[in-house]
Amino acid sequence: MDSQKLYNEIQKKKSYLCIGLDSDIEKIPEHLKKEKESVFLFNKAIIDETHQTCVAYKINTAFYEALGLKGWEFLSQTARYIKSNYPDIFLIADAKRGDIGNTSKKYAKAFFEQIPFDAVTVAPYMGKDSIAPFLEFPDKWVIILGLTSNEGASDFQFQLTAPEQKLLYESVINTCSKWGTEDNIMFVVGATKNEQIITIRDIIPHHFLLVPGIGTQGGSLDKVSDNGMNNKCGLLVNSSRSIIFKDQSKAFAYSAGKEAEKLQQSMESQLIKHKII
Amino acid sequence: MDSQKLYNEIQKKKSYLCIGLDSDIEKIPEHLKKEKESVFLFNKAIIDETHQTCVAYKINTAFYEALGLKGWEFLSQTARYIKSNYPDIFLIADAKRGDIGNTSKKYAKAFFEQIPFDAVTVAPYMGKDSIAPFLEFPDKWVIILGLTSNEGASDFQFQLTAPEQKLLYESVINTCSKWGTEDNIMFVVGATKNEQIITIRDIIPHHFLLVPGIGTQGGSLDKVSDNGMNNKCGLLVNSSRSIIFKDQSKAFAYSAGKEAEKLQQSMESQLIKHKII
Repeated sequence: MDSQKLYNEIQKKKSYLCIGLDSDIEKIPEHLKKEKESVFLFNKAIIDETHQTCVAYKINTAFYEALGLKGWEFLSQTARYIKSNYPDIFLIADAKRGDIGNTSKKYAKAFFEQIPFDAVTVAPYMGKDSIAPFLEFPDKWVIILGLTSNEGASDFQFQLTAPEQKLLYESVINTCSKWGTEDNIMFVVGATKNEQIITIRDIIPHHFLLVPGIGTQGGSLDKVSDNGMNNKCGLLVNSSRSIIFKDQSKAFAYSAGKEAEKLQQSMESQLIKHKII
Repeated sequence: MDSQKLYNEIQKKKSYLCIGLDSDIEKIPEHLKKEKESVFLFNKAIIDETHQTCVAYKINTAFYEALGLKGWEFLSQTARYIKSNYPDIFLIADAKRGDIGNTSKKYAKAFFEQIPFDAVTVAPYMGKDSIAPFLEFPDKWVIILGLTSNEGASDFQFQLTAPEQKLLYESVINTCSKWGTEDNIMFVVGATKNEQIITIRDIIPHHFLLVPGIGTQGGSLDKVSDNGMNNKCGLLVNSSRSIIFKDQSKAFAYSAGKEAEKLQQSMESQLIKHKII
């Protein structure tokens, strides 16, 4: 999927919502916990009720790896379910991988060949040869950690660099953006850092940004949209827990659908305001 | 396992060798490729022939994830085999993980509870709250990427910071070392960066360093040992491909054992030279 196709989907669905399937087994409704396919059944129900409101799903591998072998099965089942039933949805493995070249290539195979993801999140610390192998896969994307939504972002990402007097995240985004194109690189920018999004748009006016951190983490959709939207939208705004764990009853999926729809409607207003639709 | 226990093992085995089970299915001997349990059988044979020469095994998750579900089974089988048969060996998941706090905790569960690893490698870019959850597990370790062995290390790790005029990797190592103790934090420092090990030892004289990059990547055991060894050794030097893929015949494990023994003997000389044994 290239950026034009993603933009078309955003226009069609009037949404730039990415739903994070952070499907922590401890937090899914009680009646599903007993099922053998518990997490997959949870995801399937959520997906069926939300797919019309979103253009992307993001599966954070940590919640699946924590369940061992069965967790990888849920991860794989979920990814295949989405791609079989809703092939136009952009599918992100939020895995934050990265290693030396020959090893990163194996991660690329894991997420692009073994499981049909469109994109994988990667950490930039190890530099170009840790990211380049992912970029060799046609129609696939890397989403590089730029400025993250968590408190720990201040430990190194805001480190002032010399002699340019830029902050580290600015340097990371600027440097990494040259390793690929606007059709195979995005950046993670936390919604809690909405002021910095203005600076980031100066560095990369055209790239897509994956923006986590609205909802539970406290970021604002309106601020992120005002500061980060470009003329092809250029944003995928993620919400996880506040959608998928909205309701613990047997109507959990319906409630998730309603919550996602609310966000989609706010996004529709933003898209109209910014003349995207 | 604490640092004293690891030191005792180093003295007992006269070795600070870590063997990397980068068991790429494309590179294992032909006669094993056909077996259902191919990669596990390969690892088991290598482990049985090398365990007397090494104090640690490092399993790089990428080579297993690339095989999908079956790969996670091999990973888990291998880890359990090591811990059941050779419980004093320090077992590292080279996973380079790291995420926001609640998510990193799930990774910690994956590698410390689901699979009995002693340590997991983590990337520092997301800061303290991405690493802290791993440190809550007693007797477990995080091994933080400090200065990596690959070419891409120069992209950001050597970035000069202001106003201290330190390099980023120095700042990362200095800051992260304060988040835990010498009994639960180590740092990855590439053997190809043996000159920088001197500076790193000024910052963290007592921490263990996990040093990949000798063998195929070109680092020198002698230089690393001269520059990095402290009075409790303080080094785990890793070799992967040059041991495990030494020989493609049916005698592959025997050859790996011989190759590991050669390295162990060089290490024994270094331990004597540095008055550790």
